[in-house]
Formats: sequence, C-alpha cells, structure tokens
Amino acid sequence: MTPPEDALHTLDVPQRLLLGPGPSTVPPRVYRAMIAPVVGHLDPAFVAVMDSIQALLRYLFQTENALTLPISGTGSAAMEAAVVNVVEPGDDVLVCINGYFGQRIAAMARRYGANVQTIERPWGEVFTGDEVAAALERRPAKVVAVVHGETSTGAAQPIPPIAKAAHDFGALLLVDAVASLGGVPVLVDEWGIDVCYSGSQKCLSCPPGASPITLRPRAVQKLEQRQTPVTSWYLDLLLLREYWGAPHKYHHTAPISTMYALYEGLRLVAEEGLEARWARHEDAARLLWQGLAELGMPPHVAEEHRLVSLTTPRLPGGIDEAAVRRRLLLEYNVEIAGGLGELAGKVWRIGLMGYSARRENVLLLLAALRALL
Amino acid sequence: MTPPEDALHTLDVPQRLLLGPGPSTVPPRVYRAMIAPVVGHLDPAFVAVMDSIQALLRYLFQTENALTLPISGTGSAAMEAAVVNVVEPGDDVLVCINGYFGQRIAAMARRYGANVQTIERPWGEVFTGDEVAAALERRPAKVVAVVHGETSTGAAQPIPPIAKAAHDFGALLLVDAVASLGGVPVLVDEWGIDVCYSGSQKCLSCPPGASPITLRPRAVQKLEQRQTPVTSWYLDLLLLREYWGAPHKYHHTAPISTMYALYEGLRLVAEEGLEARWARHEDAARLLWQGLAELGMPPHVAEEHRLVSLTTPRLPGGIDEAAVRRRLLLEYNVEIAGGLGELAGKVWRIGLMGYSARRENVLLLLAALRALL
Repeated sequence: MTPPEDALHTLDVPQRLLLGPGPSTVPPRVYRAMIAPVVGHLDPAFVAVMDSIQALLRYLFQTENALTLPISGTGSAAMEAAVVNVVEPGDDVLVCINGYFGQRIAAMARRYGANVQTIERPWGEVFTGDEVAAALERRPAKVVAVVHGETSTGAAQPIPPIAKAAHDFGALLLVDAVASLGGVPVLVDEWGIDVCYSGSQKCLSCPPGASPITLRPRAVQKLEQRQTPVTSWYLDLLLLREYWGAPHKYHHTAPISTMYALYEGLRLVAEEGLEARWARHEDAARLLWQGLAELGMPPHVAEEHRLVSLTTPRLPGGIDEAAVRRRLLLEYNVEIAGGLGELAGKVWRIGLMGYSARRENVLLLLAALRALL
Repeated sequence: MTPPEDALHTLDVPQRLLLGPGPSTVPPRVYRAMIAPVVGHLDPAFVAVMDSIQALLRYLFQTENALTLPISGTGSAAMEAAVVNVVEPGDDVLVCINGYFGQRIAAMARRYGANVQTIERPWGEVFTGDEVAAALERRPAKVVAVVHGETSTGAAQPIPPIAKAAHDFGALLLVDAVASLGGVPVLVDEWGIDVCYSGSQKCLSCPPGASPITLRPRAVQKLEQRQTPVTSWYLDLLLLREYWGAPHKYHHTAPISTMYALYEGLRLVAEEGLEARWARHEDAARLLWQGLAELGMPPHVAEEHRLVSLTTPRLPGGIDEAAVRRRLLLEYNVEIAGGLGELAGKVWRIGLMGYSARRENVLLLLAALRALL
C-alpha cells in the first residue's frame, strides 16, 4: 500500500473566533506553552509541573481536596471518570436531567450498572432542593448527579440547595462544571460538592484533552471502600493518584504537551484572579444579552438562572438558522453553535468562555449578526 | 482562597533526548503543527483534518479497514478501547502474557467482566502458534490478545502464527502495537489482525494523547452484534465512528491540537515511506546493539526475537543502575528507563523510536554511558 497522496497537504486551518460552547479561543501564552520540549512522564521536571497543576486546580475549584488532578482525556472522559469511580454496579443513582448533559450522565451510569432514577425539568429551567429531596424520599440513592452549567440550554443550576438535599439523605453530590469552572463561581468546599469535574477547552481556554476532577474525602472514602474494582482501568482514580501524587508510580503516559497548556491556562487564571475573571465573564455576557434583545433574540433562560458563560438566544421565525451560522463561520470566521436535542432549531448557543469572554468579541459578533440577519 | 504563589513560576522544562520506552523526541514540524489555531471539533476545516488522519492511519496500519481512527487518550486508553469494544461480559478471552503489557490487557479484560485465561512465557521470550492453539484446544475463547512489541521486555512477537491459531479456533486476534507501529512492520491486513491499536508518542514521535486503533470488518461485526452496550461511553467505537465518519455527529470534543500533531507526524511517516522508516529504525538499533555488546551489556532478548524499537541491555553486576540513569538524565539530558516488573534492576530499556531513531543519538548515548560506567 502506498501513502494516500490526497491526504498529504500542509496543515492549514483558519483562525476562527470561537464563540460556541467550546472549544474557546486559545490565548497566545497557552499556544507557546504547548511547544515546550516534551519530556518523559516521570521526568523530575514533569513531576514538578504536575505538582503545580494540582495546586492551581485546587485554587480553581476553591477546594482543599487532596485528590484533585486532570484526567488524560476530554470533558466527557472526566464525566465518565466521576461516574465510574463513585458509582458501583447496583448502586442507586439519582440524575437530575434538564438538558443534554444530564442525559449523558444517566446513560453512562446505566452502562456501568447503576440503578438510575431520574427527575426532569424542561430544558432551560433548574431544580429546587425540594424536588431533589422529594425524589430521594421516594427512593434513596447513594449518588445525586446534577449539571451546574448546562451547555445545551444555557441554564445555571444553583448548587447549595441540591447539596443540602443530597446530604440530608446521605447521598454524595456529583456536579458537572464543564461549562462553568473558571468563568462563574464554582465553590467546591463552600457548596459541599463531593465530586466535581470540568474540561480544559471552555472557560479555561486551553486545548481539549486534560480535564480537571476533584473528590472530597467522603467521596474518596466511598471509592476506597468499593466492593468491586473500578471498571475502567484508564480512569481508575486509585491508580491515578499514585501517579499524580507520591510515589509517582507509572500508570499511563500523560499527554505532556496538553498538560503544559493546562498549566499555562491555570497560571493565567491565577494571575487574573478568580473574582476578576468572573466579573469579566459577566460583563461580556451582559453586553451580549443587551445586544441580542435589540436584535429580537432574547435569551431562552430566565435572567436569574442564566449561565453567564453560555447564552441561548431564541431564534426569530423565518430564518434558516443553519445557513446564517454557516455564513458567520465562512465569511466572518466566527463560530457559534446550533441548539442541541429538544432545542435544536429553536436557539443558538453562544459561548463567552475564558479568553473569548471579551467585549470586542461581543461587538464583532453582534455586528456580523446585524449584517447577516 | 488565594492562588498558590509557589506554583506560579514560568514553565521551564529542559530539552531532553528521549531514548526511553516513550515518549520519544518530537520533531520540529510536529511542534509547529500543534500551534495551528484551535477550531471547533465540527468545523469543516477540522473535519477535513480528521479525514486525512484516517486515510494516513490506514497507510500506517497497512489496512483497508473502514473503522480506523485515533482514540482521544493515550495508548492505554486505546488498549482499553480495544478490550471494551470487542469483549462482552462473560466472554472467554485468552491473553498471552510475556511481560507487563500483557498483564495489563488481562487486568482490563477482567474488570470488564471477561473470563480471562492466560498462557505465560518468561519475560523476553515469545509464543509459538502451537502454544496458542493448545490453549484454545483446552478452552475455547472468543478473543485472543497478544502484545506485538513488549515495551517491558524488548521482545517482538511474530504475529502470523498467532493469527492462524486464533482464526483456526474462530477467535478474534487483538494485537497491541503500541511500541512497534511506525518503527517496525505491522501489516494488519496481511497478517490477519482483527483489532490493532497503538500510541502516538512512540514510533510516531508525536505528543501523547491520540492513539490509533483499527478493526477488521469481522471485529466490527462482533461489536455490532453485542448483547450489551459497550460499557465505556467515551470509548464506544459505535459512537466514535459516527463522529469520525459521516454523519460527523457530535460525540465528545476531540483534542484538536493533539490531532494536528498526529496529522503532521503521520505526514512525516508517509513522506519518508514505511520501508525507509523501518530500515532507519533497524540501522540505529544494530548500531546500538553493537555498542552495548562492547560495553558488556548484551541485549536480554535473543536476536531473532528482538524488538528493533526497544532494547533491553542486561546490566553488569555491581552498578547502581538508578544512579547511572539519573546522572545520564541530569548531566547529559538523555532519558533511558529502568526495567519494569520482573526485569526491574536487571535491564535498562532503551528506545530508538521515531525521530529518536538516528545514528547520532546512538553515538551520544554510548559515549555518555562510557563516561558514566
């Protein structure tokens, strides 16, 4: 067999402004970090980077949790890691579903043998603590799972009432913060989150491929007391913590360059400071919401539950939304996304995440939309 | 909580010559490809890159298999993908163990509920087809798993006799080519391999994080006829092929930059040509073997079964091998690795993989060893 000639062209991808649900635009410093020389996954120089990443992740998650590290995969791998480590086959799990990613958690938990119970809210709404408590009253669960920032709907779930309900019934709380961590407050210790995970390519603006996760000691305890081994070897946190912490025992080969990028992205978070970063995200979002209202596309989600990092404007009737998005991408090099699941065709998904969350990007997007609509 | 000041230093990692079992030294063109602008995982520009990657992977694997793609994780994730997709809970699986990575396949298959039977050979030796046939005669299996290039021992397993034995008994053959693909011949179609996987950071010299896998149609058929869903959602090849092929349906966010790197690494393979690349690896290895013999450290593996891409010299008595490796790393910036498992303390592991497989690197290593021993 000979090489496929038509697959041998020079890599030539355009510069896009990424205003979809992720990846977000990567800052120059993160690109530069990625081409630091690759060293071995047990090299003392890399172990030092690993230590710094973990310290910076604790700041990002606002937690003292010892078990805090990046999974060597994208956000969905971190979701799967959360599920497979704290859920044992036969465990009762309550999943709160108000969008696509809640459905995904439930699907994963079922695959790993959990008895999954679900409660549902319309896409774009959120749950109250009472709803979760009532569900646990009807049928106890060992784990309650909820999505903090639903990328499919643009809703931000208040976490403390859900945490209280879960803990009142002795359950662990698992929170998906893929679309929120680093852009809006996620206070793992203060809110009482037992398992929290995220991705690198949203509000951290790193390339995808290294996904933060953190477990409180009580979640670690459940993990250590499992009757069965963690089904996934690659995502087994008992093995991963032996690599990420002392004795730094070989497990798998970490994605070195992606970890360099994550490290630089976390440095940028720490240098800016979380409070300033949250304020910058909110400032950009408010400018967007105002502009969308003027364009006749109000956000789908009520203001008090709106996710700052991802907005879902309702589409006016009579437009070919996919054609507009395509022109926006190909003529203006700006990416936004269509609706997912039951919101497909009804909303767009506009992300202002990480390095993308800047006023100039909002102005460009609004101007381009005015030209296209 | 405030940012951890001592974790905020500028990323500063040394330039090492990577002559361990992987990662190998990354060529400049691959670094450059990695900083191409990140675009969306469904952007038409990225879909074009995905198509080219798949075409180039088919050349690399020497296969016509439609289902040929990179897993979004490191080599162990590809191993787990191979196991979880073709093995169902309750399936009989025969694993041939002559080193560390055979043990890992067996461990993964057990976690996913397989009935695992093993046959063993001393570390550094290989299996005959008759041994596999005799094991299948004693107890049939649906899948036979074997490691082509055992990174823990330096042995290269001849695959065709194992394929014949597996197929004579109606079993699928799963082959680990993590340490061999791209450095020594791996002829998936000609040898009759049903499932083959590898990593990016060994003989392809890309950063870790994107790991090739290919399935023959008969393995795909077993996958499609499963009685149970694939346990891992993240590694489910039925979902992944809908993303990597038409209709390019969203599954997870691919590690975009790592895929750019893989694309460039595969272009380098195609430009050099597999035959020339195999010859370059062999040339470098022979120079190493000769030099090691002169140093009184003959390779542990008999020449006819020696893995060209990874050599395991036997250590002379009376040296503190870890101290020598440490000085080699810190004083000469050259990485090699110690022995794993039952060969720990008895051998070193020296990789000449991908961009590292050059005569000048061998000369430098031998000169440094002469200075240190």
